[in-house]
Amino acid sequence: MAVNVVESKEWYLAGYAAEGVPTTDHLTLRSVPLSLSLDSIPDAHVAVQLLFISVDPYLRTRMSGQEDGLYFPQFSLNQVITAFGVGRVMRSKDEKYSEGDIVLNAFFPVAEYCVVPSSVLIRKIDPEAGIPLPEYLSCLGVPGFAAWVGIEVLGEAKPGSNAFISAAAGGVGMVAGQLAKLKGCRVIGSTGSDAKVRLIKEEFGYDDAFNYNKEVDFDATLSKYFPNGIDIYLENVGSKMLEAVLNHVNPHARIPVCGMISQYNQIWTEREGVRNLLNIVGKEVRMEGFLVGSYLDRFADFTVEMEGYLKQGKISSKIKIYEGIQSFAESLGSLFSSSNFGKVVIEVNKPR
Amino acid sequence: MAVNVVESKEWYLAGYAAEGVPTTDHLTLRSVPLSLSLDSIPDAHVAVQLLFISVDPYLRTRMSGQEDGLYFPQFSLNQVITAFGVGRVMRSKDEKYSEGDIVLNAFFPVAEYCVVPSSVLIRKIDPEAGIPLPEYLSCLGVPGFAAWVGIEVLGEAKPGSNAFISAAAGGVGMVAGQLAKLKGCRVIGSTGSDAKVRLIKEEFGYDDAFNYNKEVDFDATLSKYFPNGIDIYLENVGSKMLEAVLNHVNPHARIPVCGMISQYNQIWTEREGVRNLLNIVGKEVRMEGFLVGSYLDRFADFTVEMEGYLKQGKISSKIKIYEGIQSFAESLGSLFSSSNFGKVVIEVNKPR
Repeated sequence: MAVNVVESKEWYLAGYAAEGVPTTDHLTLRSVPLSLSLDSIPDAHVAVQLLFISVDPYLRTRMSGQEDGLYFPQFSLNQVITAFGVGRVMRSKDEKYSEGDIVLNAFFPVAEYCVVPSSVLIRKIDPEAGIPLPEYLSCLGVPGFAAWVGIEVLGEAKPGSNAFISAAAGGVGMVAGQLAKLKGCRVIGSTGSDAKVRLIKEEFGYDDAFNYNKEVDFDATLSKYFPNGIDIYLENVGSKMLEAVLNHVNPHARIPVCGMISQYNQIWTEREGVRNLLNIVGKEVRMEGFLVGSYLDRFADFTVEMEGYLKQGKISSKIKIYEGIQSFAESLGSLFSSSNFGKVVIEVNKPR
Repeated sequence: MAVNVVESKEWYLAGYAAEGVPTTDHLTLRSVPLSLSLDSIPDAHVAVQLLFISVDPYLRTRMSGQEDGLYFPQFSLNQVITAFGVGRVMRSKDEKYSEGDIVLNAFFPVAEYCVVPSSVLIRKIDPEAGIPLPEYLSCLGVPGFAAWVGIEVLGEAKPGSNAFISAAAGGVGMVAGQLAKLKGCRVIGSTGSDAKVRLIKEEFGYDDAFNYNKEVDFDATLSKYFPNGIDIYLENVGSKMLEAVLNHVNPHARIPVCGMISQYNQIWTEREGVRNLLNIVGKEVRMEGFLVGSYLDRFADFTVEMEGYLKQGKISSKIKIYEGIQSFAESLGSLFSSSNFGKVVIEVNKPR
């Protein structure tokens, strides 16, 4: 007989972190009983066992308790954190879903189990497609799509373009660099450790890369790596790196702005400003912020292209898997420490 | 018998001004004899009497002696300054031009007379077209074209858009606001004196305007003037105003960057940085620098449209005319002092 009540551990926001990296002072794990009996589940709802949860930098901006430049709504105090995830349907009160279906949702609770309206599920995943489930949160998920929008749509990557990818070993960066290479660009990455420099050169095929923690003068660094200037800068860090880039842009350079991870742990008035924005006039630079949600009409095109690359082995992915729901606070902190490689994912329950 | 030698006064660069407004310490007037006898003029050259010279903020960036964000070449020491202007052909060694033709050139010397290759002349102007000659340096010239590119091409002005024009009583701003009104936008301007606030509301039809010298908190100012946020910001000033705007932009706002006059008198490392660029991500802002030279394929479209507006009285122009070539240094300084109204032009010689 099936289990009808589970104890589900979940992370909730105990307090806002205006500055700094959120810790277990702000994020707290609790255990709640959850009834999975079919008659306790409302119509048009499903009970789901979480398998993988995506840990992304933007989550941090929802924990500051104040409006932030990403403008995502703040998590409510004492409410569960939500994130992108993959889960398995355990019970269904919607005929479109059956027990055992693998489903994707942008707002799963960061929990072991949940009951959610079936309308929030994005789609079913075919586990026989030969693609590992965490890849749906990486190359085929939001980071991969963000990389595609940045490089192909806004970056207008073409053969011979000089592309610079910041946070190049992160979830977006690793895909962006590989996409730019596939489009014929010369690609240089910046990342936070020597090990990651090796990774992006050896595994992701970047032409070259540097460890920004070892560089004292970004201007000199970019002179060395971009003797012919920068045509595309995928912006993921902000501040001093952006300022240095603006001293090396070529005419009509594109700067798709995906995020600025250097800024998420600071109140905006305390951030270091960018002083040379005037350069975007003379070099006629186009700098454009984007949220993937605005490009959903292109998601099908992206999926076809990316699945092709994955099946042909033209794009590879590095996924750092944290084990168990209890690792959420640590895994989130890792995004801000230069310690993680590739896409960060929590394996909540082992897929059968 | 025609005069064969004239004394021509001209302005040359005696020394670079790294910071501050260039003065007569940097700009010097000298008188040089110029032979106008036909046999002294080379083939494919014309002798020109200057009538009007356009005085624009970008000129200052060519006098700093160092690379600047506008990336225009520096004027050489002891060489004559060049600028947009209108002149009358006095002698011609090119069959396409005759004595008395009125001609336009982007690089006339700031002088009373000159001999230039006919290939540099942009075009002849028909003095019978009913348009005052200085207008070819204003609404129909570079400032008008910059306003048109900013508002119509990059700004994508449409009915109901909330448009904010900085330096709104300047050569670009006054045209930009009127163009935005003609496209159905709600238009607010910022400018540097109460008299100019009145001017842009009464003569240029802005919905409202404010004197930035009287505002202590631009953020509060923009909350007041843009209760529904900003859709288009024509950037002409930079720094603190841009920062305030980025706290009030609507999703998918456009920021065409025409110039940043607050920055021209400072070395870039000493400029105040913009700290809230992260906002361009969440609001998906497109910020794009432009030089009118890149849009010359649209110049004919612009001319037809603008001549139509001028003839129908739908756009008016305020031109501040300084008398005589000796006024160049003073007129250039006026661009940085909040003292000038509209487009600044020098009348070098009276048109006959």
